[in-house]
Amino acid sequence: MTYRPLGPKARLLMGPGPSPIHPRVYGAMAMPVVGHLDPQFVALMEETKELLRHVFQTGNELTLPISGTGSAGMETCVLNALEPGDAALICVNGVFGARLREVAARCGARVDVVEAPWGQDIDPEDVRRALRGSEYKLVAAVHAETSTGVLQPLSDLVAAAHEAGALFLLDTVTSLGGVEVDVDGWEIDLSYSGTQKCLSCPPGLAPITLGPRAREALGRRTHPVQSWYLDLTLLQEYWGAARVYHHTAPVSMNYALREALLLVREEGLQARWARHRDMHAALVRGLEALGLELVVSEAIRLPTLTTVRVPDGVDEARVRGELLETHNLEIGAGLGTFKGAAWRIGLMGEAACAESIARLLAGLGSCLSAQGRSADVSGAVRRALE
Amino acid sequence: MTYRPLGPKARLLMGPGPSPIHPRVYGAMAMPVVGHLDPQFVALMEETKELLRHVFQTGNELTLPISGTGSAGMETCVLNALEPGDAALICVNGVFGARLREVAARCGARVDVVEAPWGQDIDPEDVRRALRGSEYKLVAAVHAETSTGVLQPLSDLVAAAHEAGALFLLDTVTSLGGVEVDVDGWEIDLSYSGTQKCLSCPPGLAPITLGPRAREALGRRTHPVQSWYLDLTLLQEYWGAARVYHHTAPVSMNYALREALLLVREEGLQARWARHRDMHAALVRGLEALGLELVVSEAIRLPTLTTVRVPDGVDEARVRGELLETHNLEIGAGLGTFKGAAWRIGLMGEAACAESIARLLAGLGSCLSAQGRSADVSGAVRRALE
Repeated sequence: MTYRPLGPKARLLMGPGPSPIHPRVYGAMAMPVVGHLDPQFVALMEETKELLRHVFQTGNELTLPISGTGSAGMETCVLNALEPGDAALICVNGVFGARLREVAARCGARVDVVEAPWGQDIDPEDVRRALRGSEYKLVAAVHAETSTGVLQPLSDLVAAAHEAGALFLLDTVTSLGGVEVDVDGWEIDLSYSGTQKCLSCPPGLAPITLGPRAREALGRRTHPVQSWYLDLTLLQEYWGAARVYHHTAPVSMNYALREALLLVREEGLQARWARHRDMHAALVRGLEALGLELVVSEAIRLPTLTTVRVPDGVDEARVRGELLETHNLEIGAGLGTFKGAAWRIGLMGEAACAESIARLLAGLGSCLSAQGRSADVSGAVRRALE
Repeated sequence: MTYRPLGPKARLLMGPGPSPIHPRVYGAMAMPVVGHLDPQFVALMEETKELLRHVFQTGNELTLPISGTGSAGMETCVLNALEPGDAALICVNGVFGARLREVAARCGARVDVVEAPWGQDIDPEDVRRALRGSEYKLVAAVHAETSTGVLQPLSDLVAAAHEAGALFLLDTVTSLGGVEVDVDGWEIDLSYSGTQKCLSCPPGLAPITLGPRAREALGRRTHPVQSWYLDLTLLQEYWGAARVYHHTAPVSMNYALREALLLVREEGLQARWARHRDMHAALVRGLEALGLELVVSEAIRLPTLTTVRVPDGVDEARVRGELLETHNLEIGAGLGTFKGAAWRIGLMGEAACAESIARLLAGLGSCLSAQGRSADVSGAVRRALE
């Protein structure tokens, strides 16, 4: 086997993640690695926790990046919240709700499910009904379903869980840093995210936060957390004042995350959410001008990931392939129920800008016309950016 | 809180890891992130698996980097090998053997232990005795105990495990790429490592390999693997020909690992092991010339990590602090039994060179003389590099 020097062709990342990276974040990753117990790294850990609290909008002390990707964050929250004998109610309306159920089922908890069809949100009344007369320790839901493009309304869901005495766990993988997430204001007990979505950082870490009720429950456990690597009773000693050695933190990834979070802070949360909202609206105008239909109804449409119906007679994989190879632009395929029937277009972090939208509309229009569909690209770009 | 631009002072990393990074590896991390299902990344996954097979010396198809640090690699191997009802025999002669026991205990397996004092190797006769009359599915040991500096002789241990019908799991975190590891030749069934030791790559990934017997056992499981994130029955579909989406791989870290493994390949395994061996011998000559004593006896001394007795009357933390602050040089503290009593000096990957040794001897000699001990640094450097 011969190995060529590494030199990946840059892609405009408009799929379900990873998203484009700011040059300052690349620069941070190339900074000299120091030891994971070096005072310089310890200071950076403190800064990173503080910056994560800002983006999660929380005062939670137990807020830190898990040394794995978003799914490791999910597993961390679930395994630390549940132990054998507990019961959990999981809201499932896409791939990531289903993954939550699967992860919970593997830790010896009883798992029940409230479902909604793909592309729709969970009905809080269904949750209330399921909670009635049963003792659940945890209710879990996905804020931004990356597989469908649905933004879940939360206030009734959280209220229902708390009235029933359950903790509320929220997946914020595709919302954190792109749409409002207010952990303290919304009384979210546990949340996890990923770095490679709206934070525009490479994949590799999973920010998590646990509030006081979740920490109390952690302290009352009678079984050790099933995973040693993801055990927050140990991780809080490493990331806390004690600095008890646990594992070697991924130093370069933590440099990257700190820099990405600084960029979020410099932009300001409100401005950043507004940018994602505005750019999403522009994208929708442009897609509709190309004659395309969206999967999700407007009221629950996720700004950071838009699902688009594949028009009849169009070879959707060919469109994605051509976009990637000819336009160096990545969009996502449909997953599960939407496989072959929808595209997933991400506007996350650095991708949420006018230039990306123009390039996407130009590329998509050109790929559609190659399959015999008329597409007025210049009109669509004008409509989008008006 | 004000945040200064990131700019860590570079340290010469001669502790228990992370180790110094080659400029090409930093360069690789700053390459454009592409999607985790991009054909460019898929090609890189194939190359990385092949390069890992080279350094593990194996033809094992199931050889890949886990998306977490070395401890996640440990957990992956243990959780995929064991299920409730199984029994495991763990060899413990330091922190990492104890961690193996802890991880195994959390997956519902019965765990027994064979121990040796810290600083000594495991006696294969003790293992044979423990195996007699009992049905263990797994025997696990640490090749290079990072907490003590012991290199475990393996042939009798592996033979004992296999005669008893057990799988053999080997921790190669501090040996892979620095001392000989021959997974196929030695008939190791499962092994895991880390990237930040002798591979001189930043921390964040954990190379693992599973041989045919371990894969058969995986196929015969009756319970799902306890961790969804670390489930090799799913990960082999993602890293194999099927490319079934599992999680978003840490793209930049995989760029770094490929580059670090290319550097290993360009140097050649034999040459690399010889370099670590020769530099270790040089370090030992230099330390002894400074009047210092080593903890581990010569026959089982690990070339990549050397434990040094703290002389009576010396404030060991002050020495480490002064080395770090004045000389920008990191060495490790003693752990567990050796806390306060030993230093740990790593010669891993890029650190295993004459310049590092000279700088270490100069720094250490100067810190010792600051505490009133005479230290002939120029003599020690001459002895080391003769």
